[in-house]
Amino acid sequence: MKNVLGRELPSFIDGYGEVMPFEGVFAKAGEKQKAAVNVKSVTPMDEKLLNNIEDALDKVNLKDGMTISFHHHLRNGDYVLNMVVEAIAKRGIKDIRIAASSIFPVHAPLVDYIESGVVTRICANYISGPVAKAISEGRLKYPAVMHTHGGRARAIESGDLHIDVAFIAAPACDMYGNINGLYGKSACGALGYAVSDAEGAEKVVAITDNLVAYPNCPIEISQIYVDYIVKVDSIGDPKGIVSGTTQITKDPVGLKIAKMALDTMIASGLVKDGMSFQTGAGGTSLAVAAELREYMNKEEIKGSFASGGITGYIVDMYKEGLFKNLFDVQCFDLKAVESYSTSHKHMRMSASMYGNPDNKGAVVNNLDIVILGATEIDTNFNVNVTTASDGTIMGGSGGHSDTAAGAKLTIIVTQLTKARLPIVKDKLTTITTPGDSIDVIVTERGIAVNPKRKDLIEKLKETNLPIMTIDELKATAEKMTGAPKAVELSDDVVAVVEYRDGSVIDVIRKPM
Amino acid sequence: MKNVLGRELPSFIDGYGEVMPFEGVFAKAGEKQKAAVNVKSVTPMDEKLLNNIEDALDKVNLKDGMTISFHHHLRNGDYVLNMVVEAIAKRGIKDIRIAASSIFPVHAPLVDYIESGVVTRICANYISGPVAKAISEGRLKYPAVMHTHGGRARAIESGDLHIDVAFIAAPACDMYGNINGLYGKSACGALGYAVSDAEGAEKVVAITDNLVAYPNCPIEISQIYVDYIVKVDSIGDPKGIVSGTTQITKDPVGLKIAKMALDTMIASGLVKDGMSFQTGAGGTSLAVAAELREYMNKEEIKGSFASGGITGYIVDMYKEGLFKNLFDVQCFDLKAVESYSTSHKHMRMSASMYGNPDNKGAVVNNLDIVILGATEIDTNFNVNVTTASDGTIMGGSGGHSDTAAGAKLTIIVTQLTKARLPIVKDKLTTITTPGDSIDVIVTERGIAVNPKRKDLIEKLKETNLPIMTIDELKATAEKMTGAPKAVELSDDVVAVVEYRDGSVIDVIRKPM
Repeated sequence: MKNVLGRELPSFIDGYGEVMPFEGVFAKAGEKQKAAVNVKSVTPMDEKLLNNIEDALDKVNLKDGMTISFHHHLRNGDYVLNMVVEAIAKRGIKDIRIAASSIFPVHAPLVDYIESGVVTRICANYISGPVAKAISEGRLKYPAVMHTHGGRARAIESGDLHIDVAFIAAPACDMYGNINGLYGKSACGALGYAVSDAEGAEKVVAITDNLVAYPNCPIEISQIYVDYIVKVDSIGDPKGIVSGTTQITKDPVGLKIAKMALDTMIASGLVKDGMSFQTGAGGTSLAVAAELREYMNKEEIKGSFASGGITGYIVDMYKEGLFKNLFDVQCFDLKAVESYSTSHKHMRMSASMYGNPDNKGAVVNNLDIVILGATEIDTNFNVNVTTASDGTIMGGSGGHSDTAAGAKLTIIVTQLTKARLPIVKDKLTTITTPGDSIDVIVTERGIAVNPKRKDLIEKLKETNLPIMTIDELKATAEKMTGAPKAVELSDDVVAVVEYRDGSVIDVIRKPM
Repeated sequence: MKNVLGRELPSFIDGYGEVMPFEGVFAKAGEKQKAAVNVKSVTPMDEKLLNNIEDALDKVNLKDGMTISFHHHLRNGDYVLNMVVEAIAKRGIKDIRIAASSIFPVHAPLVDYIESGVVTRICANYISGPVAKAISEGRLKYPAVMHTHGGRARAIESGDLHIDVAFIAAPACDMYGNINGLYGKSACGALGYAVSDAEGAEKVVAITDNLVAYPNCPIEISQIYVDYIVKVDSIGDPKGIVSGTTQITKDPVGLKIAKMALDTMIASGLVKDGMSFQTGAGGTSLAVAAELREYMNKEEIKGSFASGGITGYIVDMYKEGLFKNLFDVQCFDLKAVESYSTSHKHMRMSASMYGNPDNKGAVVNNLDIVILGATEIDTNFNVNVTTASDGTIMGGSGGHSDTAAGAKLTIIVTQLTKARLPIVKDKLTTITTPGDSIDVIVTERGIAVNPKRKDLIEKLKETNLPIMTIDELKATAEKMTGAPKAVELSDDVVAVVEYRDGSVIDVIRKPM
């Protein structure tokens, strides 16, 4: 069968189940039911603090076929996922599903556990490194499932993704399970991605290297959700957890794109008092923030909020008064951690509050402008940020589809060609985000506006910006690189790409 | 049938259902399931802000037989409950259940709606004033249900108390439903009692007199739980919302009791570094805090936390460094509001985090010492704070049973006689809190220790405190007042007193 974007999908996938085809950005909005959560009550006589991970595995009765979850706030410095899976493997337990918010190169040891059948299913919002390669090669027994950040929260809350045991890496934790990410040698700031896990999992185990006196305030994840606490020597490598600083690109092409993106934003009429804004931590995305910062300061514009993973650069804008508040799902650098830990107005948001389409209104719904990237774009404005053009998984939506769906103006900033390949193509390797939620593509050679945004096309006509159709943009790219060869793919599905509402927007097939 | 405390209970009560008899303080601990909550998703195209309460009643499709809920943070200044019920009554809607966290004299207009059948069921944790009188007289169609603070959160989370529409009085709210109690003319501080309502109700309507720019930070109740927002002129009378100051008793008897309570606490060995403490806002309770403060300062003792409804007096102790943190479910005065709004370490706790016995460990589980009051005590240490000795409802558990169950040392402070009646009796008018969770009774004439606390009896023997048995205490009281006449009660049940676990600890019968 095909979904509404024309992607060919199996109707049933072994290890995944029935496929619900993507039908449109808000096609599934309406009445929903959250899952009933099982809990074991804790009395004053019960102790939560255990000696080690072994004891925790005993207490939660970890066994074959269970789903265990992890958050990715320790990023490429995370030790917890590997530590827990190693302990599980030692027991001879098999057929585990890993529900991680993201998987990084540091999680390379998972590849061996995939080979040995300890891990047979994985779902995540972003996967890079050796695990992504192994999945792309079809080495995982069942297809991986790629969520969005908001979609993962939705899946957990709805019960679509039932977690047996959530293991929560806790930079600071007390003996009753009050957790924050603010203090200790593994401090990482906001813990937004771990909230749904804590609230929705059957059992919750906090793993900490910094056991502090009760009560551990401020509390990001409350004792009322945590069954057990384990103290270990180290939950992560600080060098991999937060970068010291995030950097604006110095590449002239990136800077040119950023300037054009600013002019597009201004032309849209959305750059004004009360505006809200989100951008990523990449060099070009930060360059857009830098352009916006200069303009807002010059024009004395005061925004309402910036959101997303927060960088020091956005913190600087907030401290200058350019944004009244920050909504922070994760801190990208030390400056963000510092700001988050000292200001009431730099607030944590959970992944659900960030982008879940099935709650009573996520933060993305109130976003004016979001700046996003792309690895490929098709002539219907659909975007791929999941696979490289050789078919290998190298990322995933994260908040891409969530913010694109919510924001009034979604701008993709990208160079028109990368590694001698055109970015705009007839057919994507994988669709991550539907074109219906993308408004503008800004490249160094030209700007294409989604034809459904007639209002925006009219406004941009009044500028000197190089507006062209998406087909003209594609032709421009192909003049530079030649038409790309499509990668040859087998029929084997190695991953299922879920849209934020739980429908399947695409599948990833193994390259031939 | 009789429950384990010997209270005679019907096995079934019309309008309530099957009666589950109380079996012991932790008899029902174990595996639990939270209710599945229905929500309607909100897309970027949806508006939440409505023109008035009428529109909100339309949107939530309010109809006969529904349960609507309210929080009591505006206390005796609350306008919202009356406003909503008046609008409902105007529509000719009948048979409404009011699930309020507490009901005060300001809610007197409810009596007419009880008479006219608009309101046929009420549940609350505390009821005083004309509504209490009307219920006591049997004028409500079905028996009222009295919860504890933690028990109400449990009932909502478990689905035992299903709320169709929660109306949340919001001192500050933005157009997407982010609520706090910190700002505006009706500022009341922490909103801990409203959290379960927001999370568990099918529909949530915020009623505010202070609509602020998005986003309203800090967020106490998130947009992800709020369906609609209504702006009204005023949600409450500031004079009734918070008192300017809370006062320590000047009565020498009260001060004597407070001194004896301190000596008891010291003898217990719990007054030491890391200690936690809770006391009420009454004059004698605050006098105990004053005694403790002086002692902690003199001995340089640093506690971990104080909890409960927070008064300015406790804030002073916190600011002196006597407690590292405060857990605040509601602010009793302006000093508490001010502290709550400015310090990360003066934290909000929800009613569930405060005292729900069915989550993974409430704050009361970590309490060392709690100071509580009583209107009657029996020789098994059971306590009544729900009814006067004439059988009229004049209060309720609030957090009484929750803290008593959790704390290592539960001390009742009370004068031995009140209004020429003895406090210690053979049989209580109503049992609110089981004697099994009460450790010591401190009166001006003597101190009685629960016989099961042999350890404490030994420790107190080494002091000069006037230790006596509870029977001696009763005899002392009766020497002063004569033996009281028991109030004559009919068979008609006017209210059901639920213990925090949902079992029935007692019923209240209509006086003859």
